[in-house]
Amino acid sequence: MIYADNAATTKMSSAAIQTMTSLLNETWGNPSSLYLHGQKAKEVLEKAREDVASLIGASPREIIFTSGGSEADNQAIRSAATIGKKNGKTHIISSAFEHHAVLHTLEALKKEGFEVTLLNVHENGLVVPAEVEAAIREDTCLVTIMYANNEIGTIQPIREIGEICRRKGVLFHTDAVQAIGHVPVNVEEECIDLLSASAHKFHGPKGVGFLYAKKGIRLTNLIEGGAQERGKRAGTENVPGIAAMATALKEAVAEMGQNAAHLTKMRDRLIAGLSEIPHSALNGDPVRRLPGNVNFCFEGIEGESLLLLLDDKGIAASSGSACTSGSLDPSHVLLAIGRVHDVAHGSLRLSIGEDITEQEADYIIRSVSEVVEYLRGFSPVWRDLMAGKKPFIL
Amino acid sequence: MIYADNAATTKMSSAAIQTMTSLLNETWGNPSSLYLHGQKAKEVLEKAREDVASLIGASPREIIFTSGGSEADNQAIRSAATIGKKNGKTHIISSAFEHHAVLHTLEALKKEGFEVTLLNVHENGLVVPAEVEAAIREDTCLVTIMYANNEIGTIQPIREIGEICRRKGVLFHTDAVQAIGHVPVNVEEECIDLLSASAHKFHGPKGVGFLYAKKGIRLTNLIEGGAQERGKRAGTENVPGIAAMATALKEAVAEMGQNAAHLTKMRDRLIAGLSEIPHSALNGDPVRRLPGNVNFCFEGIEGESLLLLLDDKGIAASSGSACTSGSLDPSHVLLAIGRVHDVAHGSLRLSIGEDITEQEADYIIRSVSEVVEYLRGFSPVWRDLMAGKKPFIL
Repeated sequence: MIYADNAATTKMSSAAIQTMTSLLNETWGNPSSLYLHGQKAKEVLEKAREDVASLIGASPREIIFTSGGSEADNQAIRSAATIGKKNGKTHIISSAFEHHAVLHTLEALKKEGFEVTLLNVHENGLVVPAEVEAAIREDTCLVTIMYANNEIGTIQPIREIGEICRRKGVLFHTDAVQAIGHVPVNVEEECIDLLSASAHKFHGPKGVGFLYAKKGIRLTNLIEGGAQERGKRAGTENVPGIAAMATALKEAVAEMGQNAAHLTKMRDRLIAGLSEIPHSALNGDPVRRLPGNVNFCFEGIEGESLLLLLDDKGIAASSGSACTSGSLDPSHVLLAIGRVHDVAHGSLRLSIGEDITEQEADYIIRSVSEVVEYLRGFSPVWRDLMAGKKPFIL
Repeated sequence: MIYADNAATTKMSSAAIQTMTSLLNETWGNPSSLYLHGQKAKEVLEKAREDVASLIGASPREIIFTSGGSEADNQAIRSAATIGKKNGKTHIISSAFEHHAVLHTLEALKKEGFEVTLLNVHENGLVVPAEVEAAIREDTCLVTIMYANNEIGTIQPIREIGEICRRKGVLFHTDAVQAIGHVPVNVEEECIDLLSASAHKFHGPKGVGFLYAKKGIRLTNLIEGGAQERGKRAGTENVPGIAAMATALKEAVAEMGQNAAHLTKMRDRLIAGLSEIPHSALNGDPVRRLPGNVNFCFEGIEGESLLLLLDDKGIAASSGSACTSGSLDPSHVLLAIGRVHDVAHGSLRLSIGEDITEQEADYIIRSVSEVVEYLRGFSPVWRDLMAGKKPFIL
């Protein structure tokens, strides 16, 4: 299998699995327990916190471990909303193509009286910092803009947005689930107040993530109960998972330069190759995107059929977010960058892994080209396009 | 080490570790993905759901996987409260010695306008079903009573309470974190509407649990986002952890009879032995308690010193809930059964494991006896008691 869906999930690294299994077998105590066996687990937990913090330019007390990116997004936004409400500020700025963990939380807040401005992400899939600044009002309590988009991989001008928010005294949250471990992130330098991350997107385990909250920001609990995580997230800490996440992040950051160089080369090879397919188009900015992300629309086909035929050829890819697969609606991300419904339906996301070879990239190009041509042979939409009954869009 | 703190956490079983590591290495796909590698993960996930459901008398669609017991407790109670509020019912009945995941959620609901009645658990640590019935009002939307207490191990008359609630048309939730895998639980037969469980309490992994919600009960999301878990719990499913939980639960249920018989024998041996210590008392009902739970108060000593000296002797035990360790307040559970502050401070919880031997039980009795005597030698409180300046309570 050529696994080209690393934006959906990644395989755990050997080192991360090793960390996890060794803890499962040996240091499995409850870190809240007083005896040595518990205190050893506590040490592992706090070492993981130090590691994670230092890898993103934070201090350990600013890291809360969660069950993943969605929980961290929910808690970050809920916390900022609670703080805002206390100060009479109930306006939130976000973008039209955020992850559903953000958008659905904002929907819930709207029902509670918050007003939400969703910024345009334009054709290239980028938020314009000046538009963030223009949208900030007296009653704005939060700007939440994702670091890198999960479908089209575009990397937002986070530092510029962060600086604007800092200057304006507005909290800034970024869903960095797709970015952490893949591109350099530094919360201090980029003026980030709240940041969400998920371990399984950088070769760590599923069911583990973290929330960075700048010192002084009072978090609201999503989960009430025991006094774990400084009273801000109840539940016995998943120490083996958390430590495995720290191992994975250390590796990812250490190898980032080398990985990014190789991935960018392979990505650009894929983009060049797939651009040769007639009536195809790359989605999102060609340069300001994650090193491993390729996202195309092909006119006249259905993304789902494309995926199933690629699967037969041993290529695991997706049409967009795994979180919404099963839905018949086209991707809200592709609609946000201006793709019309018909075109958005024929999308392909390839999120390649660090071990991809040139031969594999070429095999993907060949396979996608063949499958697209094959599917168009059956497509009534394509027949209409070719017959001039409908105009080509791409 | 003699590990006698299984109520805080358990060591994962070899079979559960095996399930987990094999999935981490092989079936690590995202279960929402369409390709074979994702669909294999989906199959594992749904098989785990079937297994868990059948082991508690539920159907698969009634099981939502969570990050643990605290999250499940929070979601269960929040859901019932939301349903209640819609119907103009804002009264909740619970007990004074619930886990903090329940009590703190109820505290939060009180701030939102709910009224909470906490039932007395009496000296023996048991809720009286007739008192539940008497407390139910026209506007009661939920009764939440834990299955077995996490500190003193008393097992509540769940079926009787369930039948009353069913008859009265009130939702019934039980925090079964300490019970599942240790005593037989059947949601159908016991008229349970909502039930919370945590894998790491029955030799499964940390960071995984489940919520059972009877068909027809509309759950409220704690975590908004993707469409996982029928849209009721966002976030990529922790398939390896969930499958390992199912493995652990299958084992626990299969071996329950044999384990319970051995544990009960060892528990009663410990209770008999520790009762020989002067001015000591068992906390909670001697019979209606978890097979592995022993909880004593010793007059004139501090629980924390006792634990540290037992740790030196190779015995890992606790004074109460791990979730509140570090707190200087005496256990709310012991206060709820009528222990006064001074006595509640000198508590010891032994939650023994299935592999405990008679020799180990005897070693624990000997060690506790020695340490209690040693500590009393230093204790000003004990000196006052012996000098008749203060009356003995126990």
